[in-house]
Amino acid sequence: MTVQPIEFPGLTAAASLDLLRQHAPLVHCLTNDVVQAFTANTLLALGAAPAMVVDPEEAAQFSAMADALLVNIGTLRRSQAEAMLAAVQAANEAGTPWVLDPVAAGPLAYRTGFAHSLLPLRPAAIRGNASEILALAGESALGRGVDSADDSSLALSAARKLATDHHTLVAVTGRVDFVTDGERIWSINDGHPLMTRVTGTGCALSAVVAAFCALPGDRLSHVAAACKVMARAGRLTAADVRGPGSFAVDFLDRLYTLQGEQLQ
Amino acid sequence: MTVQPIEFPGLTAAASLDLLRQHAPLVHCLTNDVVQAFTANTLLALGAAPAMVVDPEEAAQFSAMADALLVNIGTLRRSQAEAMLAAVQAANEAGTPWVLDPVAAGPLAYRTGFAHSLLPLRPAAIRGNASEILALAGESALGRGVDSADDSSLALSAARKLATDHHTLVAVTGRVDFVTDGERIWSINDGHPLMTRVTGTGCALSAVVAAFCALPGDRLSHVAAACKVMARAGRLTAADVRGPGSFAVDFLDRLYTLQGEQLQ
Amino acid sequence: MTVQPIEFPGLTAAASLDLLRQHAPLVHCLTNDVVQAFTANTLLALGAAPAMVVDPEEAAQFSAMADALLVNIGTLRRSQAEAMLAAVQAANEAGTPWVLDPVAAGPLAYRTGFAHSLLPLRPAAIRGNASEILALAGESALGRGVDSADDSSLALSAARKLATDHHTLVAVTGRVDFVTDGERIWSINDGHPLMTRVTGTGCALSAVVAAFCALPGDRLSHVAAACKVMARAGRLTAADVRGPGSFAVDFLDRLYTLQGEQLQ
Repeated sequence: MTVQPIEFPGLTAAASLDLLRQHAPLVHCLTNDVVQAFTANTLLALGAAPAMVVDPEEAAQFSAMADALLVNIGTLRRSQAEAMLAAVQAANEAGTPWVLDPVAAGPLAYRTGFAHSLLPLRPAAIRGNASEILALAGESALGRGVDSADDSSLALSAARKLATDHHTLVAVTGRVDFVTDGERIWSINDGHPLMTRVTGTGCALSAVVAAFCALPGDRLSHVAAACKVMARAGRLTAADVRGPGSFAVDFLDRLYTLQGEQLQ
Repeated sequence: MTVQPIEFPGLTAAASLDLLRQHAPLVHCLTNDVVQAFTANTLLALGAAPAMVVDPEEAAQFSAMADALLVNIGTLRRSQAEAMLAAVQAANEAGTPWVLDPVAAGPLAYRTGFAHSLLPLRPAAIRGNASEILALAGESALGRGVDSADDSSLALSAARKLATDHHTLVAVTGRVDFVTDGERIWSINDGHPLMTRVTGTGCALSAVVAAFCALPGDRLSHVAAACKVMARAGRLTAADVRGPGSFAVDFLDRLYTLQGEQLQ
Repeated sequence: MTVQPIEFPGLTAAASLDLLRQHAPLVHCLTNDVVQAFTANTLLALGAAPAMVVDPEEAAQFSAMADALLVNIGTLRRSQAEAMLAAVQAANEAGTPWVLDPVAAGPLAYRTGFAHSLLPLRPAAIRGNASEILALAGESALGRGVDSADDSSLALSAARKLATDHHTLVAVTGRVDFVTDGERIWSINDGHPLMTRVTGTGCALSAVVAAFCALPGDRLSHVAAACKVMARAGRLTAADVRGPGSFAVDFLDRLYTLQGEQLQ
């Protein structure tokens, strides 16, 4: 069964972006310490609304009110794991879609076990790099660090397996992004290497994936649109800046002003 | 008893700003995870000095040394609540003024109870949006999110009641800001909607309110000056930028270079 | 025994910077809440790789994989102290160099005791301002705040004593930076006062010191190079910007593009 990836059409991404701006979903972000502000600013720039509610009781209460939930394990601690579990359970009861970003799953034992324990809890989508997706699928990881696995195609079959086994969507991102439900595969060949020199671009993408999961319609397509919007904004931004400092600034401006035709 | 708000004079704001730069108050910020860096950079840009000391014992020790204390419950957790109580008690014993930012009070149970429990502990000022001020005053909240209540005038009577009942000052901010001691009401009709697309502008304002509360003189006027300085800097900045990314950068530059005459 | 500081040569700093970009060390940062993103972005801009792993078990596991470890006590809490101790012990077992940033040691009791307890655990280097270095060396502190001690020369003899007593390197930074092993003293007379108006420049320097400690060769010289690179980038940046907002942005761009000849 060989399925070829198909390049995701910019026109479809543009339609999803319009929908996002109309719906302005409220995204509950349980994410890591490093990327809180950049994640919030990315969502705000795109027209979504971020909120970070971290106490376990409140996290559960808030997940039921939010339009989507992000669970990012980049700086997982025991107390945060408790809040994440409470939030995921409440999200599932309320029908709130939730997204898993398994940061650095593989080499680190505690988070890898925790990420595996979340898989039966029906994430709407999983967004990771090749190492992380391989680790979640039970295959051997590639590298030691967060950005060590830039060749996402190495994890494409793992991504399909993970999606099939857990009835979820998987976005494996890198130089090329792939988004799959286990059957169909969209590819997004866009973005720019400078994005790897700015902390939080991948984590912010996962929050954006969560925001797009809140939209009505074909979720696989919306998740691909999230990847496309971020990658294209990154490529357009990189063409104009002097380095990673101005990249982070202009990227937010770009997301704020991005027009549908720029996605094509 | 109908009291009309009076537009706060820019000239008075300019005098407070001069005083702030002379005194360079040290502000102890117990604030939420998302806005730490932006809050610190806002205070530094204005000429105040920020410090975040989070262990309960040290937070108490430090509140007695600082010139003002900020308590922002945006990412309240049990361990942080303990540090906040210890810091507030030490601040009160030392005569250090403290400011409450009741982020998202209303819809979320734990923080709302905690915020209510702080009211008898004599905050120098409270800064929130309409929803938050209504919730603190025991009236029904308006919306689900942090930025859901942009029409601050809806909470003006609640703000006056809160100020009177707890012998404090209340700044209810939105498209127009109102600052009241329960009797007098200053209004600040300035600012720009782009400020709501940058995370932490409201939270940073609360830290600036705390800094201005450290100054000698009429505290009601200083709190109004804090709102005026931030709103005017926001409006001047928004005129020149491409989006929320460059807004956040230029806003800090603007605070750093702001002259008294630009407030008039 | 009077040893005169010698101005550190830019040419040597340039060689260390080249080496850093070749090695791209992975730096495990256990640092304070305020500076996480700026620290990560500083390391990325220079060509190093940051990671923040905070759970005690994982922090120990990760320190053994990383090329260097940073321990910054700016927002020390009991749970973080546990992770720091575990990480330092694992680093020592694995031969990973670790760097201590004793933020605000002196006036605050808990962190000062904790910082003292770390000294026998063989830090590769310590980076602090004059107050902090004086406090660590057991001499009386100068001031109350993080940036209160700008005259680093006041702590030069304390820095030498600390380095000698604990067989470590000490960088005491301020208007002039001094780096010593107790015998030799390098001075770096560069930098710009605007750096003190941006939160995290000192903390990010400590992370950069950690990155440079991972390089082969003369560690004293590499630590001085870390100070030189950051100070020179700061001075070049300050010449071009309008205030602290644009400083923080352009500083990252500058680190990214910095050429060896600009260090001379």
